[in-house]
Amino acid sequence: MTTKHSRLQQWERTAAPYLTAMSVLFIAVYAVPILWPGIDPVWGRICDGAGLLIWALFGADYVTRFSLADGRRRFVRAHWFDLLVLLLPALRPLRALRLVFALKVLNQRAESWTRGRLAVYVGGATVLLVAVAALAVLDAERGQPGAAIDSYPEALWWGVVTITTVGYGDLAPVTMEGRLVAVAMMIGGIGLLGFVTGSVTSWIVDRVAAGPKPEEITREQLTELLDEMRSLRNEIAELRKPMRGPEVSRAPEG
Amino acid sequence: MTTKHSRLQQWERTAAPYLTAMSVLFIAVYAVPILWPGIDPVWGRICDGAGLLIWALFGADYVTRFSLADGRRRFVRAHWFDLLVLLLPALRPLRALRLVFALKVLNQRAESWTRGRLAVYVGGATVLLVAVAALAVLDAERGQPGAAIDSYPEALWWGVVTITTVGYGDLAPVTMEGRLVAVAMMIGGIGLLGFVTGSVTSWIVDRVAAGPKPEEITREQLTELLDEMRSLRNEIAELRKPMRGPEVSRAPEG
Amino acid sequence: MTTKHSRLQQWERTAAPYLTAMSVLFIAVYAVPILWPGIDPVWGRICDGAGLLIWALFGADYVTRFSLADGRRRFVRAHWFDLLVLLLPALRPLRALRLVFALKVLNQRAESWTRGRLAVYVGGATVLLVAVAALAVLDAERGQPGAAIDSYPEALWWGVVTITTVGYGDLAPVTMEGRLVAVAMMIGGIGLLGFVTGSVTSWIVDRVAAGPKPEEITREQLTELLDEMRSLRNEIAELRKPMRGPEVSRAPEG
Amino acid sequence: MTTKHSRLQQWERTAAPYLTAMSVLFIAVYAVPILWPGIDPVWGRICDGAGLLIWALFGADYVTRFSLADGRRRFVRAHWFDLLVLLLPALRPLRALRLVFALKVLNQRAESWTRGRLAVYVGGATVLLVAVAALAVLDAERGQPGAAIDSYPEALWWGVVTITTVGYGDLAPVTMEGRLVAVAMMIGGIGLLGFVTGSVTSWIVDRVAAGPKPEEITREQLTELLDEMRSLRNEIAELRKPMRGPEVSRAPEG
Repeated sequence: MTTKHSRLQQWERTAAPYLTAMSVLFIAVYAVPILWPGIDPVWGRICDGAGLLIWALFGADYVTRFSLADGRRRFVRAHWFDLLVLLLPALRPLRALRLVFALKVLNQRAESWTRGRLAVYVGGATVLLVAVAALAVLDAERGQPGAAIDSYPEALWWGVVTITTVGYGDLAPVTMEGRLVAVAMMIGGIGLLGFVTGSVTSWIVDRVAAGPKPEEITREQLTELLDEMRSLRNEIAELRKPMRGPEVSRAPEG
Repeated sequence: MTTKHSRLQQWERTAAPYLTAMSVLFIAVYAVPILWPGIDPVWGRICDGAGLLIWALFGADYVTRFSLADGRRRFVRAHWFDLLVLLLPALRPLRALRLVFALKVLNQRAESWTRGRLAVYVGGATVLLVAVAALAVLDAERGQPGAAIDSYPEALWWGVVTITTVGYGDLAPVTMEGRLVAVAMMIGGIGLLGFVTGSVTSWIVDRVAAGPKPEEITREQLTELLDEMRSLRNEIAELRKPMRGPEVSRAPEG
Repeated sequence: MTTKHSRLQQWERTAAPYLTAMSVLFIAVYAVPILWPGIDPVWGRICDGAGLLIWALFGADYVTRFSLADGRRRFVRAHWFDLLVLLLPALRPLRALRLVFALKVLNQRAESWTRGRLAVYVGGATVLLVAVAALAVLDAERGQPGAAIDSYPEALWWGVVTITTVGYGDLAPVTMEGRLVAVAMMIGGIGLLGFVTGSVTSWIVDRVAAGPKPEEITREQLTELLDEMRSLRNEIAELRKPMRGPEVSRAPEG
Repeated sequence: MTTKHSRLQQWERTAAPYLTAMSVLFIAVYAVPILWPGIDPVWGRICDGAGLLIWALFGADYVTRFSLADGRRRFVRAHWFDLLVLLLPALRPLRALRLVFALKVLNQRAESWTRGRLAVYVGGATVLLVAVAALAVLDAERGQPGAAIDSYPEALWWGVVTITTVGYGDLAPVTMEGRLVAVAMMIGGIGLLGFVTGSVTSWIVDRVAAGPKPEEITREQLTELLDEMRSLRNEIAELRKPMRGPEVSRAPEG
């Protein structure tokens, strides 16, 4: 760990709260013109300006991290998602989703994740994903000919119905932009929601069924198993040493 | 285990049958005005009154358990769901779902759960969830402009179609309240139903395919494995002791 | 294994091909009046009669197996599904599904199931389930007011769209009977289809990706692991015996 | 490994790039008449001719591999899919999917698959499957009475909505041919997409949750476990040998 690499970590640790705050602010300036389309255009321009400023700040953060990183190529490959979001202005909703990843800084103190805590975080990420996707789809669909999604509550209902794959069809995007947002939300969100419903099921089953249950094992348990095995090997190795040692002695043990 | 903690357990064991009975009664007084909306208003008021009384009794039970608990803060954190249901009168359907959790008392005698028995319980919980959600959605949707769900059989059909995520769209809630119930049912129920269909598949596969099958392992088996390993370690430890013992003897082993 | 129990097995082995043939015949006499509703009523009565005869024969088989079984109560509990299908004449489609379970006799010679062979059997069971459910729904929906399903190809399309949970909603049952069949098919079939699509995915992934892949372990592998461990224990036990033995000898080993 | 078997491998290795190129070309000549139906019929005939030529070349490749294979029957059984695609001209879209399997040649150099790389490949296969199925459905549905799918973007939207099992129903095939393509895409694609969404979920969870997480174990880990056990057994076996050795010595150990 060279000095430069720890400077990257220091930077990330220092910048993290500010990045989180800016992510929250970005969601706000992204949402306001969509939720209140009739407001004074001044506010609209303020939001646009704030959005641009935040984008510039995220760009500055990326450049800083890039210059502090050990391996330039490896940094770019690992953080391809950040670069993608920065370079494509049209992917503004994705910038709003940075908040999901910024949640990582809240985990600096946690040593390990219980399934419950992880489910709460993933649940929060899913809620955020649906909320932002609904904003983007509303922005694209409102007022378009043949579009059915007209208000934010309707957009949210569409989002939930879609991400659970129920898909009634009472509301569906008709514009190209809306449909692209829908596809991205499906790919990202269906798995997240599967994780959440699986956790809810585990919780309900635990509350109902006391006592041992047929469950699947986890990596923790296998790691425990592997550790047991390794210490077993060590013990056997030690077992062998004294026996090998005094081979020329009177009492042959081997 | 202090005296107070065992008093909590004693209270829970004594109160359990009564709480179960009250849960069943609550579902009844909740369902009657919805299924028979045209009945004499007297009955409606009786049901309302009975509902309030049961709510008060559940509240008394919670307070009793709170006062008997060892750690006050830990009790509140563990039973956050009970407190939530008590404090939000609008969540009446959730109170009806307490029956699912009250089923736990039936498990006092069971030592362990086979996959079959667990599937039956979870299946029952799913049926109850759909039945209660259908009641709540019918209550919200009936008579509203544009609403399609008009009778309890229709509400049940909507519930099944939604919880399996098939989601035809022939029936879907249009009111805010109905949609909120729908979202809660999706999050809770899709996982439960996944559990049930998975169990049915296992049952069918078992009936068709005799003999060993490629299956996933369970925690029981891994626990068995871990136990084997621990006893293995113990044996090796004992193996070493006699060797360590006579260290001052003529034949050095170590 | 008493004489009576082996007589039950002998009976099951002897009767199995006839039961399979009768299951196939039952599907035929069930399907003909539904697929060709305009045929001569004579054929309709022949099919009804044949259906009744087959039902009687299945009943005779059940009674025979019951009298040959070791434990009467345990037999009834294990074969509750057979009894249910026999006693409820309305569950004729379920009788048609007996063919799925009759496939078990084809497995008498197989020692173990590969994932591929199991997938083919489950795939066949799923196809049969959809085909029979489509027959039943067509029978219930045809000619009813407001019903959309009018022909067997349409019923099959509805069946596939439902069992994959895609659920377009272009076709959906409107009668109580049709909806009951739909619910049964959903509960039984969604899991089966999940099994099939999972197998297809494994097959595609295997064809594309040569070499080791991150996969989940199976029960076979864990059984192998447990066997290894047990033999390990035996070896250590044998290791200890000779060492414990000559404790009074001159060369202490332990 | 006889000379003939290695000749089969040599042929496969040599032919692979050409087969991949022809697969890509086939998708092109299959797509062009569908995407641009109004073009000069000359081009249409050129595409048909090119398609026939490529089909003949694939047939020649199959015959060559068949003659070079060790076990004729085993070759036919293993490559039943290739034979099926060759013999059924109507399954032209499936021929277009050969590209998915041709991707295997790109894997000759890779030693092992990380979950990330496998997800990218499966994601690519899924995109290709949806793109080709949309072509086939558009070809079948365009201009038919009552058909809703009229352009390639609409067909793609239908494909994504179907493969995620959301199934709004705003677009659905009405022709027999279109519905058959839809069924095939559902069976093949729903599992693939499940794989992709599962990988996306893992990626998101990894980015958010640092530190150990409750995860499922993999076959790699179990192989490691089995190796540990085997070496453990070897060590114990060696432990016993020296003890067995000097049996005629003064200190009997055994």
